[in-house]
Amino acid sequence: MKKLINDPQQVVAESVAGFALAHSDLVTMSQDPDALFVSRAGGAVPGKVGLVSGGGSGHEPLHAGFVGVGMLDAAVPGAVFTSPTPDPIQAATKAADGGAGVLHIVKNYTGDVLNFETAAELAEMDDITVKTVVVNDDVAVQDSLYTAGRRGVAGTVLVEKIAGAAAERGDDLEKVHEIATRVNAGVRSMGVALTACTVPHAGKPSFDLGEDEIEIGIGIHGEPGRERIPAASADEITGHLLTAVADDLQVTSGDKLLLMVNGMGGTPASELYIVYGRARAMLEERGATVERSLVGNYVTSLEMQGASVTVLRLDDELTDLYDAPVVTTALRWGA
Amino acid sequence: MKKLINDPQQVVAESVAGFALAHSDLVTMSQDPDALFVSRAGGAVPGKVGLVSGGGSGHEPLHAGFVGVGMLDAAVPGAVFTSPTPDPIQAATKAADGGAGVLHIVKNYTGDVLNFETAAELAEMDDITVKTVVVNDDVAVQDSLYTAGRRGVAGTVLVEKIAGAAAERGDDLEKVHEIATRVNAGVRSMGVALTACTVPHAGKPSFDLGEDEIEIGIGIHGEPGRERIPAASADEITGHLLTAVADDLQVTSGDKLLLMVNGMGGTPASELYIVYGRARAMLEERGATVERSLVGNYVTSLEMQGASVTVLRLDDELTDLYDAPVVTTALRWGA
Repeated sequence: MKKLINDPQQVVAESVAGFALAHSDLVTMSQDPDALFVSRAGGAVPGKVGLVSGGGSGHEPLHAGFVGVGMLDAAVPGAVFTSPTPDPIQAATKAADGGAGVLHIVKNYTGDVLNFETAAELAEMDDITVKTVVVNDDVAVQDSLYTAGRRGVAGTVLVEKIAGAAAERGDDLEKVHEIATRVNAGVRSMGVALTACTVPHAGKPSFDLGEDEIEIGIGIHGEPGRERIPAASADEITGHLLTAVADDLQVTSGDKLLLMVNGMGGTPASELYIVYGRARAMLEERGATVERSLVGNYVTSLEMQGASVTVLRLDDELTDLYDAPVVTTALRWGA
Repeated sequence: MKKLINDPQQVVAESVAGFALAHSDLVTMSQDPDALFVSRAGGAVPGKVGLVSGGGSGHEPLHAGFVGVGMLDAAVPGAVFTSPTPDPIQAATKAADGGAGVLHIVKNYTGDVLNFETAAELAEMDDITVKTVVVNDDVAVQDSLYTAGRRGVAGTVLVEKIAGAAAERGDDLEKVHEIATRVNAGVRSMGVALTACTVPHAGKPSFDLGEDEIEIGIGIHGEPGRERIPAASADEITGHLLTAVADDLQVTSGDKLLLMVNGMGGTPASELYIVYGRARAMLEERGATVERSLVGNYVTSLEMQGASVTVLRLDDELTDLYDAPVVTTALRWGA
């Protein structure tokens, strides 16, 4: 294992500290190392619904990279590929509360769901109203290594962006929750791994893939997908992913879509754009139009090589909210 | 070799096509496949100095990711790790010319320098005044595999950003060239490779690194650096890079600096922030202050794992120009 790290146990603490230093204009790090979270510089916005997300580290820029105006108020990083405990989630919820309640955005992994649930109960004791959306956009498998039901993957970014814009325009908790739920209902993803990744404290790859093997439907922690197949062309691989996603979403003629191609961390941008081109052509063959596009590393698995394809069905309101200004380290436009 | 590609010979054409489709609000792709370049949507801005850069592909988002308002007017991608020929550079220069002349920003590699020189002569025959800045920020080695003198690496992004802002505010060609030259004079970089990368049409890694070996001072095409050393901690590696950079730049107490930590393509963001934290602490130990920070994948080497550290000495004018609005796919703020 060769990594740019010091102590494997300190990877999260050191990288979050560096992140907060580099972007002190946008974010602040909590001072309590036992309740580590990143929140918006300047603190909670009075009267605005607060948005909190979090989960195991190793998926950067998710989630801390999406803290800022128009998106998250706070993000809670756990150890690598390990859910944060309820305490820091509770602390982050408190920090994000501007008096209008807080939305928890949780990827569907058993540990995350349980810990956010406990944190929400603790927050209610502090008189903070919490509502939760559980993101489960991965169509690859039903039930998985760490999940009952479908896993939450790259679609989470779109839930955070669009719900964040709803909160920013002044929607109440009920409405922000409804918007987040609508995004989750209309978004589907599936990914592929060309290589495994190595968790720092484990010191060896989290699974084995042959020299000429790829895993279709990989999870973002290297959980098993649908099938292992021999290495194939970008067009063939994209065909597997896009067909599964578009079939599940029942994409039909006239649909207006957002197409996201997400890198797993170790994939050159040039390859993501090749996947994008093919995925877009396939959606257009179904008579749909791609109205918005997002291509890059947004929900990664450390240095894994691979990509995922995400499709969101848009309506006018979701499009407007997606286009609304956002000022975070990983997404930034319009302001 | 496992990659998300189709025909290795078509990687650049297919990825640039996908890029142009995904970001048609910001960029346009030339229609002539024999003169491939990406330019600002909407075309040249009348009366504004045009900025053109380019070079071998495989370093994305450099250069096409920096085409847009406040940065480049056109970018010319060659084959992977291979300079574009004069023809597309000439065509891009024509497309970027708004009547106020064009600045060529060229990384110091023999092929790039020659081909941009020829293109500039061709452009002069079209009555376009061209001035050139050759970027040579890499302190690792004097002369290299493809270079006489120092190589041009991640500092190129800062030259493009700051000169682009000067052109956008209406500076004439003389002044934009002076600003670009000033940035190049004040910027230094050095990188490290943990793994090699594989050029698609070569099909095998461009060099060999042992299981526990890293290369300090690596070039962005895998050219040899200063030395191979056993794998070390992030702090030790950052020590090598930052010391070389800061010594060469003669960083002293009171200096105001921009610190950039650039990923080589396959490095998790968390690792870049660990490097950032250590590099910043070392600069502060010298009594300098880090006034601006940039951390991410900006000048990559396909899927190489590794990073580079870049330091730019700021003055008030360079800081203002760096802060000025930029709207490109890879850098975006303030507008």
